[in-house]
Amino acid sequence: MDAIPIVGGTGALGWGLALRLAQAGHPVVIGSRDAGRAEEAAAKVRAKAGDGADVQGAENADAATRGPIVFLTVPFRAQSENLTNLKDALTPGQILVDATVPLAAAVSGKATRLLGVPQGSAAEQAQEMVPGGVAVVSALHSVSAATLGDPGVTLDEDVPVCGQKKDDKARVAAVIGSIPGLRPVNAGALETARLVEGLTPLLISVNIRNKTHAGIKFTGLPEDLWA
Amino acid sequence: MDAIPIVGGTGALGWGLALRLAQAGHPVVIGSRDAGRAEEAAAKVRAKAGDGADVQGAENADAATRGPIVFLTVPFRAQSENLTNLKDALTPGQILVDATVPLAAAVSGKATRLLGVPQGSAAEQAQEMVPGGVAVVSALHSVSAATLGDPGVTLDEDVPVCGQKKDDKARVAAVIGSIPGLRPVNAGALETARLVEGLTPLLISVNIRNKTHAGIKFTGLPEDLWA
Repeated sequence: MDAIPIVGGTGALGWGLALRLAQAGHPVVIGSRDAGRAEEAAAKVRAKAGDGADVQGAENADAATRGPIVFLTVPFRAQSENLTNLKDALTPGQILVDATVPLAAAVSGKATRLLGVPQGSAAEQAQEMVPGGVAVVSALHSVSAATLGDPGVTLDEDVPVCGQKKDDKARVAAVIGSIPGLRPVNAGALETARLVEGLTPLLISVNIRNKTHAGIKFTGLPEDLWA
Repeated sequence: MDAIPIVGGTGALGWGLALRLAQAGHPVVIGSRDAGRAEEAAAKVRAKAGDGADVQGAENADAATRGPIVFLTVPFRAQSENLTNLKDALTPGQILVDATVPLAAAVSGKATRLLGVPQGSAAEQAQEMVPGGVAVVSALHSVSAATLGDPGVTLDEDVPVCGQKKDDKARVAAVIGSIPGLRPVNAGALETARLVEGLTPLLISVNIRNKTHAGIKFTGLPEDLWA
C-alpha cells in the first residue's frame, strides 16, 4: 500500500498527474470504472514517462486501496457517484485529495461559471461523503490538464492546498511538491476550497481572452512554506 | 476633467492607489464624505509621493466629476450608499472602476469568507446602480492595500480586469499598468468579477497561513496582453 492511486485517472487532469508523478519516481495506480481502460491509460503513461515508470491500471475501488493518499480527479457531475463507489474501499487514516471543480459545464452551462454546492464546495461535499476517519484535502484546481499532460512543458506555478489539518496538507504538499515546478501553498481550511475551486473558471476565462493555458502564482511568499 | 478620482480614497486601498498613481505622474483627486478629511489624505500623499505630485481632496460626488475613469475603493457595507450618492455626479461615458469585495467581514463575519450578492458580484451590483451610460469595470481586488501604500515595496503582480467591453477594460488597464510592477490582465466579462472578488478572501487566508501580503500572478500569458 505505497503507491499513489488516482481515481478517474483516465481523464485529462488525472492522466497528466499520473505522468508527472511517475516521472518524479512514484509508483502510480490509475483508476477507472473499467479496469481495461485504466490499464490502457497506464500503458500510455509508461510509454511517455520513460524507463522505469511504475504505473498500473485498476478499477477505481481497487485502485483506492493501493496507497495512503488517494487523488480524485473526476468531473463534478461524476464526483458523487465516484465517492459512493469508494465507500467500502477507503479506510480510516487515508487522505482523499479532491480536485473536483463544480463548473456550470457539469449541467451544460459555461466553463467560466461556478455552480453553487450545498456543502459550500466540492471538497466539502467530498468530506461529507467519505467514510469516517478519511480526511479530504483540496488541491490541483488551477493546474492546466493540457500543461500537466505534456512532458515538453516546464511547469512553474503554485498549487493552493486546503484542508482541516496542517499535517494532512503537508503530506499532500510533499507529494505534489515532488513534481518539478509545482509549489504547494497552504491556502487555509477546507471551506476555502470554494474560493480555490473558483480559480478554475477564472483561469478558463483568462485563457479564452489571452489564448493560453494559464496557471497561478502567489507573490510575496516566504521561502520555507511548510516549516 | 482629466484627473483620476478615487471615491473612498481615504481608505487603505484608495490611499495606496492614490500614492502609486501620483508617483506615476497622474493628477489624482481623493474623494471622501468629508472634504476636510479628503484634503488631509491628499496632503499625506503629496508628502510621501515627492515633488510635483498633483493630488487634491474633494467631497466624493465632487471628486467623481473630475475625470473620465473613477475608482471606487470602499468597503462592501458602504458600496450601495456611495453609489446612491454618486447618481447625480456620474455622467454617461464615464467608467467606474469597482474594487469592492463582498467579504463576510462586512457583516462581522470572517475576512476569509465571501458573501453572496444578489446580482452575482459587487461589480454587477455597481453596474445596476450607476446611471445609464456609465460602464463598470472591476479591478484591483488582489492588490494588498498595505503593499500599495508602502512606497518602499517594489510591486510585481497581476491585476485581473473584468468588464463587458474590451475597450473600457483597455482604458482602465492603461491607467493601472502605468503603475510600475502592476500588470493588468483581461479576465473576462463583468460576471467573472465574482471569481476575482473571491481572490481577496483567498489571499487573506493565504496571508494568515504564511504571514505575508501575497498578490497573484498568472503564468503562461503572452507578452502583449492588450494588443
